Amino acid sequence: MNQSFDIAVVGATGTVGETIVQMLEERDFPVGKLHLLASSESDGHSVPFRGKNVRVRDVDTFDFSSVQLAFFAAGPAVTLSFAAKASAAGSMVVDLSGALPSAQAPQVVPEANAQVLATLKKPLQVSSPSPSATALAVVLAPLLRVLEIQRVNVTACMAVSAQGREAVSELARQTTALLNLHPLETSFFDRQMAFNVLAQVGTPDAQGHVPLEKRLVNELREVLAMPTLKVSASSVQVPVFFGDSFSVSLQLAGPVDLVEVNAALEAGEGIELVEAGDYPTAVGDAVGQDVVYVGRVRHGVDDTSELNLWLTSDNVRKGGALNAVQLAELLIKDQL
Amino acid sequence: MNQSFDIAVVGATGTVGETIVQMLEERDFPVGKLHLLASSESDGHSVPFRGKNVRVRDVDTFDFSSVQLAFFAAGPAVTLSFAAKASAAGSMVVDLSGALPSAQAPQVVPEANAQVLATLKKPLQVSSPSPSATALAVVLAPLLRVLEIQRVNVTACMAVSAQGREAVSELARQTTALLNLHPLETSFFDRQMAFNVLAQVGTPDAQGHVPLEKRLVNELREVLAMPTLKVSASSVQVPVFFGDSFSVSLQLAGPVDLVEVNAALEAGEGIELVEAGDYPTAVGDAVGQDVVYVGRVRHGVDDTSELNLWLTSDNVRKGGALNAVQLAELLIKDQL
Repeated sequence: MNQSFDIAVVGATGTVGETIVQMLEERDFPVGKLHLLASSESDGHSVPFRGKNVRVRDVDTFDFSSVQLAFFAAGPAVTLSFAAKASAAGSMVVDLSGALPSAQAPQVVPEANAQVLATLKKPLQVSSPSPSATALAVVLAPLLRVLEIQRVNVTACMAVSAQGREAVSELARQTTALLNLHPLETSFFDRQMAFNVLAQVGTPDAQGHVPLEKRLVNELREVLAMPTLKVSASSVQVPVFFGDSFSVSLQLAGPVDLVEVNAALEAGEGIELVEAGDYPTAVGDAVGQDVVYVGRVRHGVDDTSELNLWLTSDNVRKGGALNAVQLAELLIKDQL
Repeated sequence: MNQSFDIAVVGATGTVGETIVQMLEERDFPVGKLHLLASSESDGHSVPFRGKNVRVRDVDTFDFSSVQLAFFAAGPAVTLSFAAKASAAGSMVVDLSGALPSAQAPQVVPEANAQVLATLKKPLQVSSPSPSATALAVVLAPLLRVLEIQRVNVTACMAVSAQGREAVSELARQTTALLNLHPLETSFFDRQMAFNVLAQVGTPDAQGHVPLEKRLVNELREVLAMPTLKVSASSVQVPVFFGDSFSVSLQLAGPVDLVEVNAALEAGEGIELVEAGDYPTAVGDAVGQDVVYVGRVRHGVDDTSELNLWLTSDNVRKGGALNAVQLAELLIKDQL
C-alpha cells in the first residue's frame, strides 16, 4: 500500500519553509496534498513543488483537520497560535520555532536521540532544535560514546540567512555600497554588517544572553540527555550568506586519543570528517549539503584533555528544514 | 634638554611598519633621524613622516650603529638576521615578529607587565606580542586583580589585514567578483575568503595548531606571568578588512560578581567598556582607536563561575604598531 500524507507547511514563504518543500520533494516524502501557509501578508506568493507552483494561503483561515502533518517554520507567536489548533484537529506537529515547551514537544535530532520519538503520546508533537544545537548534537552524540565531556565551549559564527531574506539582501546591499564608496545604509541590522562581525544576534535578556544562546545550551542538554552539561555559548553574526561555522572546545575528564576520536566521528551518522591538516568551510563544503562537516580535530596546545573541533553546517538544511523532514519521516514510519 | 633618538623601522613598507611611522609622529616620539628599511624588493618606496616622504632603503646595507632604537616589523627570518646586528651595534630592539626567544626579548604589554622592562639587561631587546595576545592581556590584566582565572577559552576572529596588503586586496577583489557574478579567483587565500570564514590562519604543525594559536597561548601566559594558565585558542579568518574580534569565555575558581568585574574593567588602562546591552564591533569602534573595546560582559547561561566577554581591537594599532611604540617610549625613559 502506498500511503500518502496531506501536509501543511506554516511559514512557507521563509527560507526554511521553502527548503522544507524542497526537501519533501528531494527525499520523495509521501506527500498527498501540500498546503502552503503563511500570514496574510504573504498572500499571492507561490512555491514550486513537483513541477507546479503551489499557492501560499492564509494560515488564519486554514482548516488543519485536512492534514495529517504540519510543519511550523514560522515565528514563535504564529506557532503558539496554530500548533494547538493543528494538534486538536488530529495533525502531527513538527515545530522549528522553539516556541513549544519541551515537555510537550521534545527536541529531537535523529542522529542523537531518535529513541525519544518512541515515547511520544498523541497528539504527536516534536521540536527540531535551533541550527546550532542540531549541528553540535550530530557531532557530539558519537563522541559521547568514547569521551566523557565535562564542558562544551562554543562560538557559533552564524550566517545572515538565519535572520531571513531581509538580512541577506542587506548584507549584499551594504557590501555593494561600500565597494562603490557609497554611503552605508542600515535597516535590518543596527550597524554595518558588511566586512564586520556583530557580537550579538538578537535582543539580550537582563543577564545579557540572547535567545539563540539559551536555546543552544538548553536544546543541546536535552538532545544529549545531559541536563547538567556545562555549555558556554556565544553566537556571533558574520558577513556570510549561508552556512554556520562553529569553533568548539571540549573539556574532557582525562586525556583523549585522537585516533579514537577520529574513528568515532568517521562512524557517526550525518558527519563528514575532512582530512587532518585541511578544514571545511561554510561556502564550498557545507552549503547545499545534508551532513555536518568536521575538521581541525586537535588537542589543546599542551592539554590532551582538551579537544578542539571546527564544524560547518548548512543552517537552512540540516540546521532546519532537513532535520524537520527527517523527524517527519520517523513520525510517519509508525503510521505506514 | 630635548634629547632625540635616531630610529630604524625594519619592514617599513608593511601595514604595521607604516603604522609605526604614523604612531611615532602622532605620539610625538622624540625622533631624530628616521631610517625606513625593507628588503631590496621594496626599493624606491617612500612613507610620509612629518610632512615629508622618507625613502625606504635596503636593510641589507644598513649600518645599525647609526641608530639608538630599531623596530622589527618584518618577517621572522629578516628579524633573526638583523636584530642581532642592531644589538651588536648598540641599538635597542623592539621586535614585533615573535622571532626572538623570550629569554632574550621578553614579551611586554605596558598595561599588563611593564615592570619586566626594569629587569632588562643591555643590549635592550623587547618583544611586542601578537595582536591577539596583546588585546587579551590588556583586558585580562585588570581582571586578574579581582578574579582567579582557571581557564581562558578564546576564538579570535581575525581581520585579513593581519596577513598583509595582498590579503586585503584579495578580499576586495573576490567580493567584487562575486557580487558581479564573475568567476572567483584565489591566489593569496587557498579558497573563497569573501562571505566565508576560514578555520585555519596559517600552516598547522603535526598537532594541528597554527603558529598564531601557539603564540597566543605562550605569549598570554608570559605577559600575565601565569606559566601554567590553561588557554584554549582558535584563530579564524573572517571577511573583515581591519580589526580583530575575540569571543572569550573565562572559567573562574568560583562565582563572580559582575559589578566587580565591570569596575575592574572601567579602572583598567587601555580599555573602553561599552554599556550593558550594547557591544563593540571592529568596524565603527575599534578600528583607528588605541584602546581595546569590551562588551557583552555576562555570566554563563546558568553558571556564575563563567565570565563571557567580547573584545575588539585594531590589530594594526594596539595589536602591533601602538604597543611597539609604547614599549619604545618606556625604553627611552631611562635614557632621557
